[in-house]
Amino acid sequence: MSQAQDNSNDPLHAKKKAWSGRFSEPVDAFVLRYTASVDFDKRMALVDIEGSLAHAAMLTKIGVISEKDLEDIRRGMTQIREEILAGTFEWQLELEDVHLNIEARLTALIGDAGKRLHTGRSRNDQVATDIRLYLRGEIDEIVNRIEHLQEVLVAQAGKHWNTIMPGFTHMQVAQPVTFGHHMLAYTEMLERDRQRFLDLRRRVNTSPLGAAALAGTTYPIDREYSAKLLGFEAVAQNSLDAVSDRDFAIEFCSAASIIMMHISRLSEELVVWMSQRFGFIKLPDRFTTGSSIMPQKKNPDVPETARGKSGRVYGDLIAMLTLMKGTPLAYNKDFQEDKEPVFDAIDTVKDTLRAFCDMMAGIEPQAETMHRAAQMGFPTATDLADYLVRHGVPFRTAHDIVGQTVREASDRGCGLEELPLETLKSFSPVIEEDVYDVLRLEGSVQARNHLGGTAPEQVRKQVERWEKIFAERSANK
Amino acid sequence: MSQAQDNSNDPLHAKKKAWSGRFSEPVDAFVLRYTASVDFDKRMALVDIEGSLAHAAMLTKIGVISEKDLEDIRRGMTQIREEILAGTFEWQLELEDVHLNIEARLTALIGDAGKRLHTGRSRNDQVATDIRLYLRGEIDEIVNRIEHLQEVLVAQAGKHWNTIMPGFTHMQVAQPVTFGHHMLAYTEMLERDRQRFLDLRRRVNTSPLGAAALAGTTYPIDREYSAKLLGFEAVAQNSLDAVSDRDFAIEFCSAASIIMMHISRLSEELVVWMSQRFGFIKLPDRFTTGSSIMPQKKNPDVPETARGKSGRVYGDLIAMLTLMKGTPLAYNKDFQEDKEPVFDAIDTVKDTLRAFCDMMAGIEPQAETMHRAAQMGFPTATDLADYLVRHGVPFRTAHDIVGQTVREASDRGCGLEELPLETLKSFSPVIEEDVYDVLRLEGSVQARNHLGGTAPEQVRKQVERWEKIFAERSANK
Amino acid sequence: MSQAQDNSNDPLHAKKKAWSGRFSEPVDAFVLRYTASVDFDKRMALVDIEGSLAHAAMLTKIGVISEKDLEDIRRGMTQIREEILAGTFEWQLELEDVHLNIEARLTALIGDAGKRLHTGRSRNDQVATDIRLYLRGEIDEIVNRIEHLQEVLVAQAGKHWNTIMPGFTHMQVAQPVTFGHHMLAYTEMLERDRQRFLDLRRRVNTSPLGAAALAGTTYPIDREYSAKLLGFEAVAQNSLDAVSDRDFAIEFCSAASIIMMHISRLSEELVVWMSQRFGFIKLPDRFTTGSSIMPQKKNPDVPETARGKSGRVYGDLIAMLTLMKGTPLAYNKDFQEDKEPVFDAIDTVKDTLRAFCDMMAGIEPQAETMHRAAQMGFPTATDLADYLVRHGVPFRTAHDIVGQTVREASDRGCGLEELPLETLKSFSPVIEEDVYDVLRLEGSVQARNHLGGTAPEQVRKQVERWEKIFAERSANK
Amino acid sequence: MSQAQDNSNDPLHAKKKAWSGRFSEPVDAFVLRYTASVDFDKRMALVDIEGSLAHAAMLTKIGVISEKDLEDIRRGMTQIREEILAGTFEWQLELEDVHLNIEARLTALIGDAGKRLHTGRSRNDQVATDIRLYLRGEIDEIVNRIEHLQEVLVAQAGKHWNTIMPGFTHMQVAQPVTFGHHMLAYTEMLERDRQRFLDLRRRVNTSPLGAAALAGTTYPIDREYSAKLLGFEAVAQNSLDAVSDRDFAIEFCSAASIIMMHISRLSEELVVWMSQRFGFIKLPDRFTTGSSIMPQKKNPDVPETARGKSGRVYGDLIAMLTLMKGTPLAYNKDFQEDKEPVFDAIDTVKDTLRAFCDMMAGIEPQAETMHRAAQMGFPTATDLADYLVRHGVPFRTAHDIVGQTVREASDRGCGLEELPLETLKSFSPVIEEDVYDVLRLEGSVQARNHLGGTAPEQVRKQVERWEKIFAERSANK
Repeated sequence: MSQAQDNSNDPLHAKKKAWSGRFSEPVDAFVLRYTASVDFDKRMALVDIEGSLAHAAMLTKIGVISEKDLEDIRRGMTQIREEILAGTFEWQLELEDVHLNIEARLTALIGDAGKRLHTGRSRNDQVATDIRLYLRGEIDEIVNRIEHLQEVLVAQAGKHWNTIMPGFTHMQVAQPVTFGHHMLAYTEMLERDRQRFLDLRRRVNTSPLGAAALAGTTYPIDREYSAKLLGFEAVAQNSLDAVSDRDFAIEFCSAASIIMMHISRLSEELVVWMSQRFGFIKLPDRFTTGSSIMPQKKNPDVPETARGKSGRVYGDLIAMLTLMKGTPLAYNKDFQEDKEPVFDAIDTVKDTLRAFCDMMAGIEPQAETMHRAAQMGFPTATDLADYLVRHGVPFRTAHDIVGQTVREASDRGCGLEELPLETLKSFSPVIEEDVYDVLRLEGSVQARNHLGGTAPEQVRKQVERWEKIFAERSANK
Repeated sequence: MSQAQDNSNDPLHAKKKAWSGRFSEPVDAFVLRYTASVDFDKRMALVDIEGSLAHAAMLTKIGVISEKDLEDIRRGMTQIREEILAGTFEWQLELEDVHLNIEARLTALIGDAGKRLHTGRSRNDQVATDIRLYLRGEIDEIVNRIEHLQEVLVAQAGKHWNTIMPGFTHMQVAQPVTFGHHMLAYTEMLERDRQRFLDLRRRVNTSPLGAAALAGTTYPIDREYSAKLLGFEAVAQNSLDAVSDRDFAIEFCSAASIIMMHISRLSEELVVWMSQRFGFIKLPDRFTTGSSIMPQKKNPDVPETARGKSGRVYGDLIAMLTLMKGTPLAYNKDFQEDKEPVFDAIDTVKDTLRAFCDMMAGIEPQAETMHRAAQMGFPTATDLADYLVRHGVPFRTAHDIVGQTVREASDRGCGLEELPLETLKSFSPVIEEDVYDVLRLEGSVQARNHLGGTAPEQVRKQVERWEKIFAERSANK
Repeated sequence: MSQAQDNSNDPLHAKKKAWSGRFSEPVDAFVLRYTASVDFDKRMALVDIEGSLAHAAMLTKIGVISEKDLEDIRRGMTQIREEILAGTFEWQLELEDVHLNIEARLTALIGDAGKRLHTGRSRNDQVATDIRLYLRGEIDEIVNRIEHLQEVLVAQAGKHWNTIMPGFTHMQVAQPVTFGHHMLAYTEMLERDRQRFLDLRRRVNTSPLGAAALAGTTYPIDREYSAKLLGFEAVAQNSLDAVSDRDFAIEFCSAASIIMMHISRLSEELVVWMSQRFGFIKLPDRFTTGSSIMPQKKNPDVPETARGKSGRVYGDLIAMLTLMKGTPLAYNKDFQEDKEPVFDAIDTVKDTLRAFCDMMAGIEPQAETMHRAAQMGFPTATDLADYLVRHGVPFRTAHDIVGQTVREASDRGCGLEELPLETLKSFSPVIEEDVYDVLRLEGSVQARNHLGGTAPEQVRKQVERWEKIFAERSANK
Repeated sequence: MSQAQDNSNDPLHAKKKAWSGRFSEPVDAFVLRYTASVDFDKRMALVDIEGSLAHAAMLTKIGVISEKDLEDIRRGMTQIREEILAGTFEWQLELEDVHLNIEARLTALIGDAGKRLHTGRSRNDQVATDIRLYLRGEIDEIVNRIEHLQEVLVAQAGKHWNTIMPGFTHMQVAQPVTFGHHMLAYTEMLERDRQRFLDLRRRVNTSPLGAAALAGTTYPIDREYSAKLLGFEAVAQNSLDAVSDRDFAIEFCSAASIIMMHISRLSEELVVWMSQRFGFIKLPDRFTTGSSIMPQKKNPDVPETARGKSGRVYGDLIAMLTLMKGTPLAYNKDFQEDKEPVFDAIDTVKDTLRAFCDMMAGIEPQAETMHRAAQMGFPTATDLADYLVRHGVPFRTAHDIVGQTVREASDRGCGLEELPLETLKSFSPVIEEDVYDVLRLEGSVQARNHLGGTAPEQVRKQVERWEKIFAERSANK
């Protein structure tokens, strides 16, 4: 241990021997490793410092520690932050977690003022504060990346508002749609994701600080003050709840699972579209990888990896729900297991969004291939049924007539638009020459011209609506 | 089949033979059962009618069907609703689902107008509309029950604002709290649950109607109009998304999982408190059951059942997340599997809340037993440490001194408050006679007198805050 | 209530009033419904009777009840079984579960002997016995259906041992394989499923009977005797474990999840193969359904439904794991929640296997379409690399050479086999005329002629191996 | 890069520029990180080498590479193994995974022979081989630790075969049992865990090597030979299945989930037993930790951490099941996500078992406290009922009589054994003086004297049975 970090005078280091005067032996070395969290919770170091500084400021305000103490604490914390950023801070497993590591270092640096910092708080409310501060920051970054991905998708929609592709249900050709319309569907999903993260952010952004171990503290603390310093919107109203609430972590993993589910759906489509049988898009080589054995391969590794990663985030959610099940009030050590799932969900969502922002900007829809594909499978059969209805045939009867017409075309191996008029008339006398307008793909998409429909005009309107939203978001930043 | 339901003229019944003119053979009987949903989706019958009536009114408004058709549809639907409520409606498996059952009956009753009802919509948007309407109603009922349970808990808190019990962390006696404070912790959890359900209700309450199969329809439909008739807050902006979105079902199962997790925690505590080793509460006999073999048993079946039921709701959530994973746009048959998990989660949450509203009103805290239990385990050790700090000892040093004091008391087999002053002084000279005030349970709880703390005064304030909230809720209904 | 079921003399019916002499009030009506299980556990009625008869025979053997009692019990149970099979048995919610319903009826029918039946056992070991007996029978039926599906797949493999299709990795054309080889891959998966069910069957097939409530009983019971009568392979060695073990239910749900996962993979492939872009198979109309709006649609509802149902079985597994987490010994009411997930998993797996047995026998591979598809994507590039290696080029160098060759062919828009020899030679001088043999699909598949490879000869050998296995299974039945 | 690892001549390093001659640009740097696995799969380095050596030996045997090549490969691999063990091996992210890292290093060390190693295999079968070899080794270690924990529990049972404690159902005192009996219940659970791991080990221990990319290889490979060299019990019979099978990973996570569930139950009991309200056991200080704020606390961190960790393993299972759902044959990049969940489950189970081996050896049951606790709650009520039955009262009637007797004792605030004989007789005239023998705890436990019962004699027999099993296991090692 370097001179700079000689902590030998620090009572926290008694832990190397025993927890407190009450213990007759130190913690078993393997137990220490089994129950320690510093390996993963050190990523909360900067918010831990932030929380401690707010707590110290509050203690000073209410007169529990002196201005001098506060100054010492600030000075010590400034140095510690620098050491952490520089990578020179020595994390010690025997100090169990990020909080005790920093506190021990602080005391080594500034002496008694460091020991006074923990007055009126406990690790229970400290860790709850840290994880909320940390998660709040990550949510903001995730929301940024969602917005970026929305912009990328809307840009693709803007380029392809009129590019016809087959719309599928049950992976069967259903009706023609535009590629832009398809991109906008994912934009809508992402918007719900964004709303969900913003909704849960409010529940994250509540201050547990001051709940202490479980019951509050005997010091006349000012919880609103420290909450305000930390940018919290509200103060937790019950100390037992404050130290044992992990709802926000579950809710975060749930929102993360849903966005990963959305990405898994988009990934599935990209993989299918990339397949030689579809050929709907091309992906720049930098987003694909090859095979160690098959020299011809270009594999869509990014969407496949993302699709697989949905599983790990679902797993994070189940880990959180399981660990909280049936735990009595207030704090239990089980809760320490909240961090790794949350961190994993954060990393996975952030990385995946970043990869998709880059990749979705690069995909190249193959308009001609998609148009050809849209012509297969009688995609304008519904249009023919609607045509019949407009000429007075009840919908269910029209549906049946068209079914027979499709069978005829299928037997002949041609499209509906290739059947001669007399054949069409043999199925229903109301059919006239103008039927061929509705049997063409272009006519079909243009006809779905209402709010939310796939008509190019509607797609363009939606693009404009989104661009206005993006402009407003920019303006508010 | 009764005369009243002779559907032989209904083309839908062609399904008994073949789906449409395109099919050469009918659906296999077992396949029909395997893929049918009418057994479970018939609980959406009334909202299906509601949705159809709004759709019909919209079709009339835009001139696609006549006023006469609308009248017929309304008359037919009135009769169908009555048949359903009376239990005389004949559900037919071969008609696959609730939608086709009702439509077939309507056509049997009113003829061609019934066949025209399906103009400009598809089962894909119809089912999405129904499940949203249904879920919206159930969310409202769940929110009602949450509010009721909050009132029950706050009433218990009001009675026991000053009833001391041991507060636990790690199931070890930590610091004394009041029973009222404990009840309020669960009230806070329920409030977050309530907020979550209200947040997601907004995302449920969006109209997919008019998205048709996937791309919109060729009719000049007025989606805002039908949405308004149905009380929807918004209209889905993209038809592909509208028919393939099941986010709301996942989000509902997630919120349901979290509230069941809360209930599992309360259940765990009730079970432990009922145990002879604790004896903290008594439960009226009507909430317990006996043993088939052990005549002395009174088992806390309700909380145990509830604790176990958390599992099924977690399972519902995983079922939903799994089924959506990797599904391409737009509609896929997989999505039909959304209903049973959602219905199961609804039923479980509603029943559990009802059982807890009744039961929590009936629990009888055993104040004397809890007080005695609170005296064990040196629960005022923190108070002693705080006392030392107030006399100038740094917190970490005080912590260590108290550790040694506790060890001494433990060795003597007495409480801290039973140690003579001279013994206490031997650990720290700053200790004086007034130390015994902070070592008493009453002094300890009263000292935690800040927002969110367990001091009886604070608990009473929280009870008043809640009562005001309840009054406002009542006023707004 | 009919004369035949006048149970008024039955002390069990005291439950309508109170559980036992110890209770001052009856169970609350809603609580009764909330905690009752008869609605779903009555499907165990026949095994409950079977278990009771074995228990009675054992009690007679050790002299605790008389031969006359045993006769009465047998007579009563025979009648009850008939009533159940005839659907005339009156299930009563207030009797909570299947066990008390049957016992009450027995006592009404035969008097005191019925009351003596419960001697030396408890509901805790009774329910554990029943669920094991029930599950054992269902496992046997599931194994039967797995074997049947294997036969169907091997029959398809036998027909298509030489039918070439593209083999995919990353959904990119990789190397040609045969359709038979593909079918055999699923046969292997099912074989592992079968082994898993047989492995866990051993752990299901252990007798908990005699563990009584939790500690055993004071009667000199002969647990081996009743176990033998019931066909159990072993006797649980610890009573606390016997009444609180639900491992077998979890393990069953796990095996059920894995087989549903396999089915979800096959379903995914069927859906993709049915798509117009692939067209690899045709499905008989009886396994497809149409659209309410799109008259041309034939949707692969069966595989889609099955794919979606994987979610519910995963959910059942999570429900079971969650409910057991953290429960203390011995029995807890939570465990009653084990039945619905297990029953749901049983039903889902059985129905799905039945649907797939029928459907997989009916699929019609489109050999020509698949062959054409296999030619795209340079599927014999690896064969070219292997050719180079056989002529002395290190594999990694060969890989690189072929990569450049593929690029050339891709730029020209032709297959590798369409490049002139001189072009091929320009990439590597070792290439000669015989290279075209390895560039053909037929040459490629035939070359993979080792155990497990896709060479038609190997596929035929595997079909023979399986047919021999099937014959042995038949012989052993 | 050090001289020793100058890989500049290695074509694999072309990947830094482009995957193969077919690619026009290199992989994007972030994509590389997103899709790379070397950070976590390098723990398979030693088995990767083992697998490569067996593959090389097989290639030599069939004459595809020379004896000299094999020698070179062995020499190179020896050095690489040493570098890895010494920590001097330079892992490179741009080489994506453990396999390419090692192969690149080999080629740098030995030249062309290294490039020939990959002949006749692909990363797809290579990675499947590695994970199976790795997992097989870890299963063996887990089984060792299970056996060790069983020994620890049986040793405790041997010490406490006659130590009476209350047996609980529904956490209500049910009947007295012995502490030894309780320990043996967990021994039984662990035995099922052990069996499960051994069962699934057979399915792990199958060789996929030779399946190559998906279809087998054109080389005349001898798959049985390489399988035998690697200790595999069987050879995968279908190449498509071999590269896409991850059943074993799911099955492993399932068995891991079940054992963690068992540990969570034991943990729950330890936490409850440690609570001041129970005081059933003492835990050495080295297995507990203190509080940062409450100097009196000794928290059972180990069992709480273990209980919480059940969640992460459940999560690993769901991650695996989710990622495999709906994936088509054969290999997909998604499958790379199999490693982290499996590794996490391995680490968690191994660490937890180790912690419990140490800790369970150290727990000190408090016999007197447990005996006192067993006297509360009328635990011998069933014995009284059985007494009545032995004197001719039907069981259900006896149950009711005892219910009333318990109520009387409860009203008097005494135990059943403290009621005077005349009072007992007032409930049933068959009661005589000898009833007090059955009402004592000792009499109660001794009476449950049959296979699996809690009678001390039976517990001792079980201890002996286990000791014999342990001796046999040792002998077989």
